[in-house]
Amino acid sequence: MVQYSPQIDRTFAALGDPTRRAVLERLGRGSATITELAEPFGISLTGMKKHVQVLEDAALVTSVKVGRSRLCSVGPRRLEDVQEWTETYRRMLDERLDRFGELLERQKGSAS
Amino acid sequence: MVQYSPQIDRTFAALGDPTRRAVLERLGRGSATITELAEPFGISLTGMKKHVQVLEDAALVTSVKVGRSRLCSVGPRRLEDVQEWTETYRRMLDERLDRFGELLERQKGSAS
Repeated sequence: MVQYSPQIDRTFAALGDPTRRAVLERLGRGSATITELAEPFGISLTGMKKHVQVLEDAALVTSVKVGRSRLCSVGPRRLEDVQEWTETYRRMLDERLDRFGELLERQKGSAS
Repeated sequence: MVQYSPQIDRTFAALGDPTRRAVLERLGRGSATITELAEPFGISLTGMKKHVQVLEDAALVTSVKVGRSRLCSVGPRRLEDVQEWTETYRRMLDERLDRFGELLERQKGSAS
């Protein structure tokens, strides 16, 4: 299961910020310029550009220059890797819990 | 959907490192001391302690002092929040794709 993947590192790290998650949720409803993204959060354009850059590096957002604006959209990556890793990890914990439960049952059986 | 949650921030950030994900996978198979965790990665005890601290801050790992060792186990949090956020986001993208598909179908219909 252990694989070195700079891509999934970048994805998890990009999601570890509430503004960046909110930007993804906003873009999930439709494309928006940097200015449109920055306004509701009350942060500077420079601050929003940095957040968008982190999301672009993780391929979660793409952007294109339109006149003097930069239009942002959801990117090609759709968190498949995050979902897969999380599910595999949870399944592993569940299986361990199941084995523990079986062991308890067996001990109960041999004690009676 | 937007909620400020320092907990989920810490969780995503903790997972953005391959060593920390590998430590979780290792502890998913059973408890281990800091020394046992550090060895296979070839990193110092101090380095491993720092990684474990980040995981403990995210409640993904708990540890207890046993004699001169520190025994680490998987923590109370099982990535429920990460899984929920990821699924909600992907569902949002899927629904948008569906609406886009419908629009295309309708346009094809009116063009013929």
